[in-house]
Amino acid sequence: MAATREETDSLGSIDVPADRYWGAQTQRSLENFPIGGDRMPLALIHAFALQKQASARANRRLGGLEAELAEAIDRAAAAIAAGDHDAEFPLVVWQTGSGTQTNMNLNEVISNLANESLGSARGTKRPVHPNDHVNRGQSSNDSFPTAMHIAGVREIHARLLPGLRRLHAALAAKSEAFHDIVKIGRTHLQDATPLRLGDAVGAWAFQVETGIARVEAALPRLSALAQGGTAVGTGVNTEPGFAEAFVEELRALTDLPFTSAPNKFEALAAHDAMVEMSGALNTVAVSLMKVANDVRMLGSGPRCGIGELMLPANEPGSSIMPGKVNPTQAEALTQVCARVMGNHTTITVAGATGHFELNVFKPVMADALLQSIRLLGDAAASFAERCVDGMEADRSRISELLGKSLMLVTALAPHIGYDAAAKIAKKAHEDGTTLKEAARALDLVSDADFDRWVRPEAMLGPEG
Amino acid sequence: MAATREETDSLGSIDVPADRYWGAQTQRSLENFPIGGDRMPLALIHAFALQKQASARANRRLGGLEAELAEAIDRAAAAIAAGDHDAEFPLVVWQTGSGTQTNMNLNEVISNLANESLGSARGTKRPVHPNDHVNRGQSSNDSFPTAMHIAGVREIHARLLPGLRRLHAALAAKSEAFHDIVKIGRTHLQDATPLRLGDAVGAWAFQVETGIARVEAALPRLSALAQGGTAVGTGVNTEPGFAEAFVEELRALTDLPFTSAPNKFEALAAHDAMVEMSGALNTVAVSLMKVANDVRMLGSGPRCGIGELMLPANEPGSSIMPGKVNPTQAEALTQVCARVMGNHTTITVAGATGHFELNVFKPVMADALLQSIRLLGDAAASFAERCVDGMEADRSRISELLGKSLMLVTALAPHIGYDAAAKIAKKAHEDGTTLKEAARALDLVSDADFDRWVRPEAMLGPEG
Amino acid sequence: MAATREETDSLGSIDVPADRYWGAQTQRSLENFPIGGDRMPLALIHAFALQKQASARANRRLGGLEAELAEAIDRAAAAIAAGDHDAEFPLVVWQTGSGTQTNMNLNEVISNLANESLGSARGTKRPVHPNDHVNRGQSSNDSFPTAMHIAGVREIHARLLPGLRRLHAALAAKSEAFHDIVKIGRTHLQDATPLRLGDAVGAWAFQVETGIARVEAALPRLSALAQGGTAVGTGVNTEPGFAEAFVEELRALTDLPFTSAPNKFEALAAHDAMVEMSGALNTVAVSLMKVANDVRMLGSGPRCGIGELMLPANEPGSSIMPGKVNPTQAEALTQVCARVMGNHTTITVAGATGHFELNVFKPVMADALLQSIRLLGDAAASFAERCVDGMEADRSRISELLGKSLMLVTALAPHIGYDAAAKIAKKAHEDGTTLKEAARALDLVSDADFDRWVRPEAMLGPEG
Amino acid sequence: MAATREETDSLGSIDVPADRYWGAQTQRSLENFPIGGDRMPLALIHAFALQKQASARANRRLGGLEAELAEAIDRAAAAIAAGDHDAEFPLVVWQTGSGTQTNMNLNEVISNLANESLGSARGTKRPVHPNDHVNRGQSSNDSFPTAMHIAGVREIHARLLPGLRRLHAALAAKSEAFHDIVKIGRTHLQDATPLRLGDAVGAWAFQVETGIARVEAALPRLSALAQGGTAVGTGVNTEPGFAEAFVEELRALTDLPFTSAPNKFEALAAHDAMVEMSGALNTVAVSLMKVANDVRMLGSGPRCGIGELMLPANEPGSSIMPGKVNPTQAEALTQVCARVMGNHTTITVAGATGHFELNVFKPVMADALLQSIRLLGDAAASFAERCVDGMEADRSRISELLGKSLMLVTALAPHIGYDAAAKIAKKAHEDGTTLKEAARALDLVSDADFDRWVRPEAMLGPEG
Repeated sequence: MAATREETDSLGSIDVPADRYWGAQTQRSLENFPIGGDRMPLALIHAFALQKQASARANRRLGGLEAELAEAIDRAAAAIAAGDHDAEFPLVVWQTGSGTQTNMNLNEVISNLANESLGSARGTKRPVHPNDHVNRGQSSNDSFPTAMHIAGVREIHARLLPGLRRLHAALAAKSEAFHDIVKIGRTHLQDATPLRLGDAVGAWAFQVETGIARVEAALPRLSALAQGGTAVGTGVNTEPGFAEAFVEELRALTDLPFTSAPNKFEALAAHDAMVEMSGALNTVAVSLMKVANDVRMLGSGPRCGIGELMLPANEPGSSIMPGKVNPTQAEALTQVCARVMGNHTTITVAGATGHFELNVFKPVMADALLQSIRLLGDAAASFAERCVDGMEADRSRISELLGKSLMLVTALAPHIGYDAAAKIAKKAHEDGTTLKEAARALDLVSDADFDRWVRPEAMLGPEG
Repeated sequence: MAATREETDSLGSIDVPADRYWGAQTQRSLENFPIGGDRMPLALIHAFALQKQASARANRRLGGLEAELAEAIDRAAAAIAAGDHDAEFPLVVWQTGSGTQTNMNLNEVISNLANESLGSARGTKRPVHPNDHVNRGQSSNDSFPTAMHIAGVREIHARLLPGLRRLHAALAAKSEAFHDIVKIGRTHLQDATPLRLGDAVGAWAFQVETGIARVEAALPRLSALAQGGTAVGTGVNTEPGFAEAFVEELRALTDLPFTSAPNKFEALAAHDAMVEMSGALNTVAVSLMKVANDVRMLGSGPRCGIGELMLPANEPGSSIMPGKVNPTQAEALTQVCARVMGNHTTITVAGATGHFELNVFKPVMADALLQSIRLLGDAAASFAERCVDGMEADRSRISELLGKSLMLVTALAPHIGYDAAAKIAKKAHEDGTTLKEAARALDLVSDADFDRWVRPEAMLGPEG
Repeated sequence: MAATREETDSLGSIDVPADRYWGAQTQRSLENFPIGGDRMPLALIHAFALQKQASARANRRLGGLEAELAEAIDRAAAAIAAGDHDAEFPLVVWQTGSGTQTNMNLNEVISNLANESLGSARGTKRPVHPNDHVNRGQSSNDSFPTAMHIAGVREIHARLLPGLRRLHAALAAKSEAFHDIVKIGRTHLQDATPLRLGDAVGAWAFQVETGIARVEAALPRLSALAQGGTAVGTGVNTEPGFAEAFVEELRALTDLPFTSAPNKFEALAAHDAMVEMSGALNTVAVSLMKVANDVRMLGSGPRCGIGELMLPANEPGSSIMPGKVNPTQAEALTQVCARVMGNHTTITVAGATGHFELNVFKPVMADALLQSIRLLGDAAASFAERCVDGMEADRSRISELLGKSLMLVTALAPHIGYDAAAKIAKKAHEDGTTLKEAARALDLVSDADFDRWVRPEAMLGPEG
Repeated sequence: MAATREETDSLGSIDVPADRYWGAQTQRSLENFPIGGDRMPLALIHAFALQKQASARANRRLGGLEAELAEAIDRAAAAIAAGDHDAEFPLVVWQTGSGTQTNMNLNEVISNLANESLGSARGTKRPVHPNDHVNRGQSSNDSFPTAMHIAGVREIHARLLPGLRRLHAALAAKSEAFHDIVKIGRTHLQDATPLRLGDAVGAWAFQVETGIARVEAALPRLSALAQGGTAVGTGVNTEPGFAEAFVEELRALTDLPFTSAPNKFEALAAHDAMVEMSGALNTVAVSLMKVANDVRMLGSGPRCGIGELMLPANEPGSSIMPGKVNPTQAEALTQVCARVMGNHTTITVAGATGHFELNVFKPVMADALLQSIRLLGDAAASFAERCVDGMEADRSRISELLGKSLMLVTALAPHIGYDAAAKIAKKAHEDGTTLKEAARALDLVSDADFDRWVRPEAMLGPEG
């Protein structure tokens, strides 16, 4: 049986594994929430450590914390932020809705780390007390949302935007490479007038580019932090100037443009900025679903599909059909998109169900948003690298299909009118002939005019 | 300026258009909720009239209402249920969450109609009082959910199930007609082993058939009615036996198997049965989205798509591309499916946000569920009649594609092993040859064995 | 039997009611889509008429349309935009996914109106042909999304932003009026430290203000128009310069800052800008759900609830409980929010399910977005006028509750430490005494210190 | 640097860590999908092992696999199902949409385990080949959905239903215990007529009981398994009778009533049964959201809320407010509910986006459904044990509130009419008096009649 030590909180004493840095409240939470098993995302834990570090610095600067204690807290928090103590954060997402227990998990681990570094034993709460010093001038109610905003902003910068930019670059390069390829267009999944393959791919690139802009547009509001509001938004028990000093320290620590939320009451009671960012991610998911679907449908085949694109073969596709290759990167990406859309529902419901001075769906909102950010960033990068980069056009297939199409008849309409042109298309379709043959049979256009007017390469813009 | 008469309620007097049968509370609601303009669905109004009719009969039978008044109410309600007074129900969905104002709209119109039929003037509330007689033993809190359940059940029987059955029959007939057609299968949108076209269509038919079963499975809980619970579920102010008598009268009026909700407290405070039914409709929408997508993708072309199915041409498809024909019934149906999925989110959020003894999202839940029911029923029937019935297989195209496929190689695996079979498929793909040529080149299968083992018609079942 | 005239399109002839201005394609759609009954929103029809008007002007300017025809089209379209011919647009939302039939409905009605004004008979298509002239240089594929963007932007300016601004002003005024009222805060629905009632209301005002900013941030992308892309984005069959000329004419007609979409391929194939705007509306709905819930919960009672706010009595609340008054405006608003969240799911699914050069969920996206815009605008304005404006604080109730609270103990923590303060709160709770009595009993704080440290009015900010 | 061995598949050779049992395809997937990090749920892996075990037994019985190989596969699969090799399944959810790579992960690990047990080396694929023997007569396309159904059904039986039954029992016990407590009812959050506290709690119990019935009603369709359909539903490459033999073996292994899907084509191409079950879970989430919200709102306080219920104090509630206790179990549960609603959106979108013979959103559907099942089961059990069981009624508070209420006036309506009763309530409200005083002041009811008619205990049912 593992050795334990006794820790206490306002409900009494409780046994904690002797080799752990956490304390009574973490232990209680571990026992009280045997739900699911999904731990708080490490991105959140690391961001929370930065929140503690910046708080200690701000408190020290404002005179609320003596230097020795502040420095011990600073060192401990920095180590956590660097990932040195990940195993000390065992709590699950499904806990109190303010994330208080995870805040106390940070406070307790930092207190014990700091006390050890100052020569004191674990569990003594001296000289660094988890509440009075590590949590000084803070409440879970402002600290947790601060940490979740920090985590979101950091992950967006570190994963999402790089992933989307990678994908945008890959698509833009292919758009350029495919500029000279003219292909049949498809509307309603039916043959339509032609366009450049480069323009089809360019539309996907534009979607991704605009998605980046959408995420960036929502960033300033996610970068506004609740810290300094403490329990209900008033800032009770903070040093004057704490909110501002905190943000300054955090900017120095992260080199990211965080700001202090203009309305602290709102920053605790509602998490609209999370809902807004999730809406931006939902739009990105919608875009990527379209792109990935088009890629796999244009790449369908190899012999019985559309087959205009040839996708890289990354792995055997089937456990039963030998030699089969599948568009697996597109499938991973579209599954990610479905997940992001679901996470958006979760975040919407959670955001809408707060009461009075505190929204108590913080952990689930943080977990879902961080998952959406990471999945979209990772999947976009992987799709770019393992699918888009290696995607090739099957020029002969594209050319064969373009030649067959009846919708080149559209080029006749400005010359002979919609109704006459429709007659030609209908006849060619029914007789299985070319448009020219049908035009001739109906005596509606001379062969010379037909050749002059119906040229796919002249149908690629208004000049046509 | 239109003539008015003065009506009163507990807040005082108010002018009502002289030619209208509604009274003070309806008028107040009209003025207080200038929101949106979407009126309460007529299916709900008609069901509510049946609720009033059955209540009057039950009260009369139990001695709570004298015969003359009960009969006057009965006649007025029957006329409303028959659609004779639709213009008297001008209130919008976006009103009080209990639907009280629509209940009062019914009470007021019936009171005035009944009083006129008994020789009294509009607005007198005598001898038939809207609250004391029309609403006798009732509260909006039990009557509105009763009406919304009645409306849902009636619409499911009148529109949804017939529409789904029509579609199922159409698909089953096509499955039968296409039984002998062997086509290439597609998994991951890539060529796979063959199957019968009749089996592909049969899977769609099975989805619809199971969808019908799903809706039917949820019907008993939707058929359980809140009536008799009055204000909070206790049944205060009802005659003893009212809940049971009401259901008996309603069954006689509608010939549908309604029951009395086993727990009236729950029947007012939560509308889980609506959420459950919406979940069944959501599943049906998922099924129909799949079916309609497959239909339009198999029908893509006419010359540059998959083109295995030929869909009926119901209207010109394009305002700019002459002769274009589009799968418009599939498009209407998939749009309906997207709406039903959204309605399900609405109903889910609404159902989750009730408090204490009353859920006050009743009108939006009723509106959304009734729309989902109607849209699915109408669109399924239209899709069956205007798309599925006229759908034909392009046998030569199907045969051409099947002959090309590399995945017939799967039939070799049990004989020569997965790895050797994969080599053949890979070589054929790279060289652009047939499988047989590749098998021969690799010296892995004799021509005779190849012909004996690789036969699409022998790959349609386990016996292969 | 009603008189009819014969109209023709490329599928043949069809009878149309003689007194109607629509033609063959509208009639065919009427017969082919007996689904639901929800007509295309008038806001869309009016916007579509503006699209036709601006197109005629642009074509005339560029030499593509002779003056007489252009002017006739212009007049007809202007009359439709003004609402003079609403009954001529009978088509439902559930039609072809490109909205082609509604585009043709516009083309046909304008053609007939124009021809009549030029002395020609209905149905002649001369001198103004629906396709060759009214639809000149246009496709449904660019025109419908242009119209849906125009409609969205106009409705946002005309209804949504005014409604939100009205609500913001009402809340800001109350925040000001309630500045001096100190009340108990509530976190986790449990008593917490105090705040100003004005600050609680100010948080709501801030949510609405930020919601306005969110909608405004998404407007530029919704203001970018697809017009000029025609069938697949290339602009085939347009006059050179048409896209730009169109936008200039439209800006002149509407006085709104519309732009030409930078990527026309994307503007047809995807409707991410609609999804993005719906995301902004979803965030607004989340905000308003929180605000309305808080209002009705603070206003709960009158005698057995929280009762800190007194809400206006707009109508009798119950058909069975005499004298009952309910927070009906909050209920209408929260129902609207549930609807907007559902519409967002619909728009998300629809936006994600486009293929190749065209998204064919345009009508359902337009319908859902326009409903969300209108409902939020109307409901916000009504809630402001009929609930917020008349909302009063019950100062004696607020004061009574504040005096009882145990969470004033928080003010002791900086002086005696968290653990000692917790002991006092726990004792007072268990014994049912005041904090001061408990502090005295535990001998942890002198009465003098207690009075100096524990002052609600000093807990309203960091200076506490 | 870690030791590796070389493994091969149809794409060539690849290095695999020497100490791992997985092979080339698992390794490729690890490298190709650096997305997210969420591993396939262990519940799925264990179920998949059972699928392999039952397949080996069925193949052996039908003569498709010799005894020695079958037994080696059986032993290896049993060990995996027992959790002995969890670390050998490192693949993430975000992979190919058929789950092929996880199927191959199973095939490879079992092959290597079996071969080792038969004296052969890892990576030899002899005598047990991953495809030819472990996967014999199987495709990922039927095996993965079979495993995800098995996992879902097992988890529902092992976690969800026990959790819901535990909660139902706890609520039913409290309903009984609180039967004699009469409290004020609340509709629209406003005071209404009285009810028993036992009946309010009984409504919650009924919701949970019906939720159990909803899940059970969807179980038979989730218990129908795709196995035997192989690549596209035809069953190509299976022994005749395999589907039936498989189900028999699986029933013996699990003691659960699995069946063979009646339509194998549908069972691969669509996952409507997953969508349906998710709909049932969504309804349960809606129910539990209502229950948890009511519990925490009735338990609000301790001094400034409603305070009719007293909830157990499980942990310190605040890092800044000493002595605060919060309804954390309700918060964990409502967060779970928000997650389940979002998972339902994910599953809906995924289920709707399949094409042709295969839905390729299998992993995300499995992951989301298994998470919903586990979270609801765990959270329901924890909420029952740590909140409901210890929940007490504050009888004096309940009695105090009941005595104040104005809505007892409802009992007068049957005697003096709605309008007169409303006058009394209004006067009492305005004057701040009791109803009796108002009745007397208005001279509408004698004191004796008042006392006879207005008795809360007589307002608890129709006999009132």
